[in-house]
Amino acid sequence: MAAMSHEPQTAAGAGALLAILRDGRARTRAELAQLTGLARSTVSQRLDALVQGRWVVPTDDAISSGGRPAAAFVFNESVRVVLAADLGATHARLAVLDLGMTVLAEQAVELPVDRGPEATLDDAVAVFGLMLDGLGRGLPDVCGVGVGLPGPVDHATGRPANPPIMPGWDGFPVREWIGHRVGAPVLVDNDVNIMALGEHRTVRPDTDHLILIKIGTGIGCGIISGRRLHRGAQGAAGDVGHIQVVSASEAVCRCGNIGCLEAVASGAAMAAALRAEGIDARGSRDVVALLRAGDTRAARLIRQAGREVGGVMAAIVNFFNPSTIVIGGDIAEAGEHILAGVREAIYSRSLPLATQHLTIRASRLGDRAGVIGAASMVLEHVLAPQSIDRSVAVDPAAPVGSQ
Amino acid sequence: MAAMSHEPQTAAGAGALLAILRDGRARTRAELAQLTGLARSTVSQRLDALVQGRWVVPTDDAISSGGRPAAAFVFNESVRVVLAADLGATHARLAVLDLGMTVLAEQAVELPVDRGPEATLDDAVAVFGLMLDGLGRGLPDVCGVGVGLPGPVDHATGRPANPPIMPGWDGFPVREWIGHRVGAPVLVDNDVNIMALGEHRTVRPDTDHLILIKIGTGIGCGIISGRRLHRGAQGAAGDVGHIQVVSASEAVCRCGNIGCLEAVASGAAMAAALRAEGIDARGSRDVVALLRAGDTRAARLIRQAGREVGGVMAAIVNFFNPSTIVIGGDIAEAGEHILAGVREAIYSRSLPLATQHLTIRASRLGDRAGVIGAASMVLEHVLAPQSIDRSVAVDPAAPVGSQ
Repeated sequence: MAAMSHEPQTAAGAGALLAILRDGRARTRAELAQLTGLARSTVSQRLDALVQGRWVVPTDDAISSGGRPAAAFVFNESVRVVLAADLGATHARLAVLDLGMTVLAEQAVELPVDRGPEATLDDAVAVFGLMLDGLGRGLPDVCGVGVGLPGPVDHATGRPANPPIMPGWDGFPVREWIGHRVGAPVLVDNDVNIMALGEHRTVRPDTDHLILIKIGTGIGCGIISGRRLHRGAQGAAGDVGHIQVVSASEAVCRCGNIGCLEAVASGAAMAAALRAEGIDARGSRDVVALLRAGDTRAARLIRQAGREVGGVMAAIVNFFNPSTIVIGGDIAEAGEHILAGVREAIYSRSLPLATQHLTIRASRLGDRAGVIGAASMVLEHVLAPQSIDRSVAVDPAAPVGSQ
Repeated sequence: MAAMSHEPQTAAGAGALLAILRDGRARTRAELAQLTGLARSTVSQRLDALVQGRWVVPTDDAISSGGRPAAAFVFNESVRVVLAADLGATHARLAVLDLGMTVLAEQAVELPVDRGPEATLDDAVAVFGLMLDGLGRGLPDVCGVGVGLPGPVDHATGRPANPPIMPGWDGFPVREWIGHRVGAPVLVDNDVNIMALGEHRTVRPDTDHLILIKIGTGIGCGIISGRRLHRGAQGAAGDVGHIQVVSASEAVCRCGNIGCLEAVASGAAMAAALRAEGIDARGSRDVVALLRAGDTRAARLIRQAGREVGGVMAAIVNFFNPSTIVIGGDIAEAGEHILAGVREAIYSRSLPLATQHLTIRASRLGDRAGVIGAASMVLEHVLAPQSIDRSVAVDPAAPVGSQ
């Protein structure tokens, strides 16, 4: 058993107070003392440090009470901003958010990752700079950067691990490259992982086990187990696009195997099937546009894709017993046309105990799931109680705040 | 965000000291003070409480130093015992273990669960009584009871949830029934979950993500995600026996579906296939006995079962990216005959990133995995620092131990 490292002075330090205040409610010293079990003098001392760092502010109520010391405090969501980048194969969504997860600015830009990491990331940093300018903020306001990449990532190092569609990115130090330019901590993860995190943290934070399956050009999923991202031993968890479907399809996949889910149910596969029938469809969005225009061939393909996805998810429901399955990615825009097939296959092949309370629905965040998840990942890191304790550096010898 | 409940006096209480000492190394007061950041007087006070409760004892070294106060302390593994029961459909394994996970006594007994919970559990408690007598211990020595059941269990309440092969057990208060008779905390879980926990905690404690698949009369798996059991939303996770195999089998399963893994690769399915060829085989053990006797039909069936299991596990490897897959249950006794097929299918259908460091092997604990896992589950509960803090009830006003 590893030796335990205790720092008793941080057991309920400034960071723990901030964690309580992050729910957005104003609290008095007495409330904070009661919630933490700390002495009021200790609470005051730590609040002073947080006020000095502008992490919390006295509420208007308190200020209006005239002359007396502030009686209540509230988390200052605008003290810093977070930068979030959700990179796809050809396009990226970039956003600036406050600490309450409100999107202050966002931009969808053409940013093909096949130009290599240096050019792609430098362009992203340049766009971030313009967005910050537009908001009247600067790099010193940035408390962290979250990046989602369209391939496997070693989360511990932030480096891509043999990403199939990102030439030149294998092992590239994304974290250091951006961190050097922005001067703030950088966290990197797979794009589907951050989508799952975004849906979980904002739409279903009380759900223990959630799976987000993204159906776009390819197919992959992000997994929340016990409210935490399950990344797997090599960060490769969620690679469901290459699971063999049970429909005995002979479709050849780009991975070299036959009958992979991605080869029969992805946006790319459906667009190819439509092209084979003489219809102009380049990708996922065209398939959904055809559906909306009333094209019955597109509708049939999407419903069949739903059943194939559902067949694979039925196995995963038996294995994993999630509370919620969320369908995201461009094809999720097909709504009930894709969900119907998914539900049909899951209900017919999964066990009743695992499906009786199972929710299956389309993503609520849509295009924004990635940037919101990337920002959530950053906030959980930079607002962790230990990080705040370090940042405000409470001096035990400092005079106790007036009260 | 939920209010945080802090009890500063337990931040590094007696339980935290015990957690350090559980690694089996003797420690001095000075070492413990350094590891916890506590004052030596505080360490002494808490050690006194632990010595008084016999949770720790002065080491022989210290005693031999003659007259002076004990200088080093060690965890007392024999201060209490744990009772562990691993119940199968017709047989159970019962064991008494010390707090260092050494099996002090064990017994395999015929105990058909279809007689209902009262008769089954009363018989188990009676056998535990005899085993304790034989060891010269009594019920007051028991710090907890761990029970594994052959069906889904709601772990929070300890009640079986619609278990298919346990008539009369649905919703039965197993925890209260045993707790009332033994007078100690009772923890209940699915039999495969405790097997996975046993393998993880004793054989591979440093592995983050492990799957134990049990191939016996039925097929199921236990899942460790982030070193913790993943039980799923309804405690139904790991029910892989009813996942549809990709080999287009038309075998009808007892669940009513066709092509379930259990219907083609379980010990029951193989025994039925052998009987259809006129061979006397009633269950898993007969199939393995025939293999060992050189029966080529049994060997062929087992290798094919390995490929079917591997086909399903290949999908799970893509989804979950485990570090280790352990094969347990009676059919695991077939060793490489079953492992070869499992490996072949996983390597041919899973992605290289997920298989490059994947370990696939037979259970090291064999028949004992269940009772060792059940005991681990109990120890993690009763030896948790907060539990120990409550049990030793340190009195802050007590005189500080001599030093």
